Amino acid sequence: MKEVTLGVDIGGTNTAFGFVDREGNCLAEGNISTGKHKDITLFFDELTEKIKHVQHAMDKNIKVRGIGIGAPNGNYYHGTIEYAPNLPWKGVIAISMLFKERFDLPAYVTNDANAAAIGEMLYGAAKQMKDFVLITLGTGVGSGIVSNGQLIYGHDGFGGELGHTIIEENGRDCACGRSGCLETYASATGIVRTATMKLEETSQSSVLREVEPADLSGKMITEAALEGDALALDVFDYTAQKLGLSLANTVAITSPEAIILFGGLAKAGNLLIHPVSKYMEANLFSVFKGKVKLLSSGLQEQNAAILGASALAWQELKKEHYNAVQSS
Amino acid sequence: MKEVTLGVDIGGTNTAFGFVDREGNCLAEGNISTGKHKDITLFFDELTEKIKHVQHAMDKNIKVRGIGIGAPNGNYYHGTIEYAPNLPWKGVIAISMLFKERFDLPAYVTNDANAAAIGEMLYGAAKQMKDFVLITLGTGVGSGIVSNGQLIYGHDGFGGELGHTIIEENGRDCACGRSGCLETYASATGIVRTATMKLEETSQSSVLREVEPADLSGKMITEAALEGDALALDVFDYTAQKLGLSLANTVAITSPEAIILFGGLAKAGNLLIHPVSKYMEANLFSVFKGKVKLLSSGLQEQNAAILGASALAWQELKKEHYNAVQSS
Repeated sequence: MKEVTLGVDIGGTNTAFGFVDREGNCLAEGNISTGKHKDITLFFDELTEKIKHVQHAMDKNIKVRGIGIGAPNGNYYHGTIEYAPNLPWKGVIAISMLFKERFDLPAYVTNDANAAAIGEMLYGAAKQMKDFVLITLGTGVGSGIVSNGQLIYGHDGFGGELGHTIIEENGRDCACGRSGCLETYASATGIVRTATMKLEETSQSSVLREVEPADLSGKMITEAALEGDALALDVFDYTAQKLGLSLANTVAITSPEAIILFGGLAKAGNLLIHPVSKYMEANLFSVFKGKVKLLSSGLQEQNAAILGASALAWQELKKEHYNAVQSS
Repeated sequence: MKEVTLGVDIGGTNTAFGFVDREGNCLAEGNISTGKHKDITLFFDELTEKIKHVQHAMDKNIKVRGIGIGAPNGNYYHGTIEYAPNLPWKGVIAISMLFKERFDLPAYVTNDANAAAIGEMLYGAAKQMKDFVLITLGTGVGSGIVSNGQLIYGHDGFGGELGHTIIEENGRDCACGRSGCLETYASATGIVRTATMKLEETSQSSVLREVEPADLSGKMITEAALEGDALALDVFDYTAQKLGLSLANTVAITSPEAIILFGGLAKAGNLLIHPVSKYMEANLFSVFKGKVKLLSSGLQEQNAAILGASALAWQELKKEHYNAVQSS
């Protein structure tokens, strides 16, 4: 009998799921559209039908032990998704209860960055680490921070919002209603804002001038930089300055063994890691200098979010087993 | 038989110690000069003699269970004091081993801010809390951050250096060799720098103009503000702006239930707490607004550092007892 957990990654556009064993192998997977369902009940009906379909096609010797869910604004303590701006459903969704009832299995939820952090700890770049920071550089910036081997959920379950630390007083307007958040500089949308700024402020030649401003994307800027475009490289340097200082400040708070870059913008690899490392080191308090590794995600890119959600379930099942042994 | 731990607070000027029971009552105490001993052996000889003298004068029914030591640059993992700039001894001092050998008791060390945080958790303002931040506003700025009921020591034992996060790029020169650290604004010395700046930049009348610039102290500025001196109040407002933003960013990372202000400058009470609270709330990410308590230390002022060091010992003894039960 092989044991797996079901990992579910609920995103603004798509919801993907997979059955994952203890070693992080994804044995079967599937996905549905999130965006087309304004009604959570219809979404959940389609999702469970698809999951059960994929499950029935698997080897009958496979036993599902539990369900982990990664979702924007997922609250671990409450088992809910709360006021997620990028999902079609408003208010508070009791997502883990929905899964528990439909599948008769334990179900756990956390936000996508926290799920990714647990994924790195179980299957990826943070194996054996007890203190590390994972930062997701996607459409927004999220983070999962692990200290003493445990995620920092904080008092209300919303710890680890590095993307919404203010790094520039009176800086760029942020979707959260404030200004100067790290997210406005170090996300895929932030890097587009920086490129637009550089294109307007300078007369430097660049392949990016051939693109309609509204069509500019993080991917285009990354490709231009990889080909040596000087303006695109300046954009990365500027981004790295902001991110490097912010990470140096985070190190002073949690003293991690490593910082793991995750998500769309992190695919730029050394194009981002080298300058971020330079600016982080330059800003580190002396006791931390030269000690903190800056790493790329160790999860298989395609399934990273599913692996993270599945890892959450493995971790929670282990905790429950431990507590049961303690009280017996 | 009453049980106590010995709490030792090693400071740049004085070293104080006390025997403290589980409820936080200090049954006997004493202190010696730190500064006069350039040689750690002579310092330690005088300290142990004084401790044994005080111990012998106590009720014979009191049993000492262990020793907790709070010291600048105290490293919990190594049991050492490492390169403390404000202590007379250079390099790495194996302080917990010295105590263990001389007293034949378990001995533990951490930095003074971490010790204060454990003290608040056991005896003070953070009883029953599992997630909080303690910030010491003294000659420097230190912090002890508790998440999931445990201190964040981080990978190398130096976590929680909030005073050395950079809050102003190219800001004030810091003793650490960098510039713009929170410590240069929110410490007793930082507030003197702010007052000096305001006295030079404005022609506002103030009782502080009657003081020789070199004699200006945090205490004087606090007293002037308490008497309604407008310039001194401006100094507090400026300090609160810097500290409030920094605390708002810290909340986004660790999501604490409360932030506890500790140390010399914290004695200003509501003179500091009210404006810090205002600026912190203004800068908080929406999910945290109105949720985080800002508190003054709940430890008896005179013995706060001794209580913290003693609490460290109680906490470690409890951990060791728990581990012994687990493995039996």
